[in-house]
Amino acid sequence: MSDKRDAMATTDARQEVVEKAQAAQAAAREMAALPTSAKDRALMEMAQALIERQHFVLEANSADVRAARDAGLSEALIDRLLLSEQRIAGMASSLREVTGLPDPVGEVIAGWRRPNGLQIDKVRVPLGVVGMIYESRPNVTVDATGLCIKSGNAVILRGGSEALRSNIALVRVIADAAYSAGVPEGAIQLIETADRAAAQQLMRMNRYVDVLIPRGGEGLIRAVVENATVPVIETGVGNCHVYVDETAPYDMAEEIVINAKCQRPGVCNACETLLVHQAIASDFLGLVGPRLIARGVEIRGCPRTREILPQAKEATEDDWGAEYLDLILAVRVVDDLEQALAHIARYGTRHSEAIVTREYECAQTFIERVDAAAVYVNASTRFTDGGEFGLGAEIGISTQKLHARGPMGLRELTTYKYVIRGAGQVRQ
Amino acid sequence: MSDKRDAMATTDARQEVVEKAQAAQAAAREMAALPTSAKDRALMEMAQALIERQHFVLEANSADVRAARDAGLSEALIDRLLLSEQRIAGMASSLREVTGLPDPVGEVIAGWRRPNGLQIDKVRVPLGVVGMIYESRPNVTVDATGLCIKSGNAVILRGGSEALRSNIALVRVIADAAYSAGVPEGAIQLIETADRAAAQQLMRMNRYVDVLIPRGGEGLIRAVVENATVPVIETGVGNCHVYVDETAPYDMAEEIVINAKCQRPGVCNACETLLVHQAIASDFLGLVGPRLIARGVEIRGCPRTREILPQAKEATEDDWGAEYLDLILAVRVVDDLEQALAHIARYGTRHSEAIVTREYECAQTFIERVDAAAVYVNASTRFTDGGEFGLGAEIGISTQKLHARGPMGLRELTTYKYVIRGAGQVRQ
Repeated sequence: MSDKRDAMATTDARQEVVEKAQAAQAAAREMAALPTSAKDRALMEMAQALIERQHFVLEANSADVRAARDAGLSEALIDRLLLSEQRIAGMASSLREVTGLPDPVGEVIAGWRRPNGLQIDKVRVPLGVVGMIYESRPNVTVDATGLCIKSGNAVILRGGSEALRSNIALVRVIADAAYSAGVPEGAIQLIETADRAAAQQLMRMNRYVDVLIPRGGEGLIRAVVENATVPVIETGVGNCHVYVDETAPYDMAEEIVINAKCQRPGVCNACETLLVHQAIASDFLGLVGPRLIARGVEIRGCPRTREILPQAKEATEDDWGAEYLDLILAVRVVDDLEQALAHIARYGTRHSEAIVTREYECAQTFIERVDAAAVYVNASTRFTDGGEFGLGAEIGISTQKLHARGPMGLRELTTYKYVIRGAGQVRQ
Repeated sequence: MSDKRDAMATTDARQEVVEKAQAAQAAAREMAALPTSAKDRALMEMAQALIERQHFVLEANSADVRAARDAGLSEALIDRLLLSEQRIAGMASSLREVTGLPDPVGEVIAGWRRPNGLQIDKVRVPLGVVGMIYESRPNVTVDATGLCIKSGNAVILRGGSEALRSNIALVRVIADAAYSAGVPEGAIQLIETADRAAAQQLMRMNRYVDVLIPRGGEGLIRAVVENATVPVIETGVGNCHVYVDETAPYDMAEEIVINAKCQRPGVCNACETLLVHQAIASDFLGLVGPRLIARGVEIRGCPRTREILPQAKEATEDDWGAEYLDLILAVRVVDDLEQALAHIARYGTRHSEAIVTREYECAQTFIERVDAAAVYVNASTRFTDGGEFGLGAEIGISTQKLHARGPMGLRELTTYKYVIRGAGQVRQ
């Protein structure tokens, strides 16, 4: 009996996804033609509605938080889930900020005339239907919806089950406001069933969904990459390095290492491994080590590091590959730039990598040889961020090479089409 | 025993792919830094070697052709497989043409200074390792390798088993020439086992392969999309329409329809369905129908079409979705532009779609509402092609929206990285 009920629930879950994906695609066709002014008006209305109806949202969120506590979730997870008046105000203000960003749709990226007289224009258009699969933070629900609307896309949201009540409330508030303001009905879809079959179904809706963007931990992203047939943009996992070269100015290198590790350790562009040239290892680690430890950083070092910093724990192979997202730093003394490059090639996740150096040639070699979305010379890895790059809000940070790399803003939520205007040309 | 032997063969096949992918990635790192002059010299040497060693290639090809005949393959398939002095000269000349195309690597796509003084440059770089999975035409082996080398990528080739001897010979010739000319050894890899496990393995080598481009029939492309975890660019399937509007000049519309259907029916940008506005259906089909039939085109029509052209067979639901790649044309009389747009949205494969019209508003509506890589006004769909667009040679035609859409030339075989130059900046 229970198996049968499960099977029925699964069928219902799949059906919900199919229906919502079809509705999203139908709405996407209209979204593509929506003028910027209408999109901006909708974003302002959504922001306003969030403020006006915040008690409705906070009530739903309280129920999620109670259930999470009952289920014994960690305080860190509950903090991610928790909404407050202040956090809702933050979401509203993000939506308003998106109205200030330029609309990417309709940009003529390139255009040229062919010898036969054909005029070929390459015109930016929305992707169509964007599927977001994410974990507990309910702000993703609002942020992603805002960016998708401004870029002319429909969105299908699949959040974490622990945030389901919050997400239902948030989507009701923002979708009501958006539709009243002229966004085509169906453009904002939330998968409301917690059944895993729903996510599986969403990952295989190639006919209706143009791209999937997973946001969350490594497990979530891996599951989407493994199971999706819809094209995926991999985001987020960042095992970032700072390499302090032989010629690095110590004070600059210290500030960069401390900033990259400590300014916000829980994010993907934080530094996880420090590589130090052997010629300066003793001096530099002697300076930066105590400062890191004083800030609560646990150091896990290679044997040479531990000779210099006896407080350091022993680093294992796992440490070189780890994305700690915490106040832990792996430290390795390397023979030279070549060994640093080899280490980064082997363990890096192609997110953000930095060198600190005075030498022109070392800087150039590092820039050319490191394969990552963002390569820094003499700056902290923490700048890999849509806002810091000046792109405005971001929907994620791509760590793959296809389509978009690094911070993805509005433009990265578009594709293009070729528009060819002729006067009866046929091919010879 | 046999099961055990199969299992061992499969293990060997997987091992071959892993080793070749690792070698390709190692070579890709050097490829990225190879100067344009070295890449062009290698392409010229490869072309020269193909001509000089053509008998070695033709002998291997004869063995493939004999085996194909023994296996009872169709003449059409054997023709695809067959090489000749002329076809080899064609491959050599394609390689030489690629030397004339601009090198996309190193282009600064955009660059700006942030208020904190950080200089951010968005620089074009190779994708890295490109996996090609394709069917019988051995020219893909050479064309794809040439484009990958010019764009600074390493390539892993997996051709059809019926062309294996030809591909082994071709790769030996071009790889020898390329490596002598300074291309890093390992940059050109051919999977030499016919075991299907090899293709499966290649599709899941996310750590080493940056993109897969399948080229071939719908079955091949579907299999890759279904099974790959490596990012895929879907190519090729084209169910293209020509819509002849109420106001279309008949002579222009006739030429476009005949060209789009007949000039080369076996390719993806050929027209498969003609949609005609009801107001002119009787006149226009009366003109174009006999001309198409005289050229050997079989017409499969909707009921209204068959009233006008009694020679037409009855079109079924399958016909609207078919990519015939043959002298067959589905014809439907539609009420108006809206119905034409709905038909294209339902059955089109987002490849190339054309309208023939005199009306500005119809043209604009068609351009805006049709979701396809190439949207034509008053021109034949047959122009969707890298050469015809002026992009030079193409590695395929993308029918997905992520990364690249339509003809993919050298630039579409690249990604970018952000290079950030600072003077010690840290994040506040």
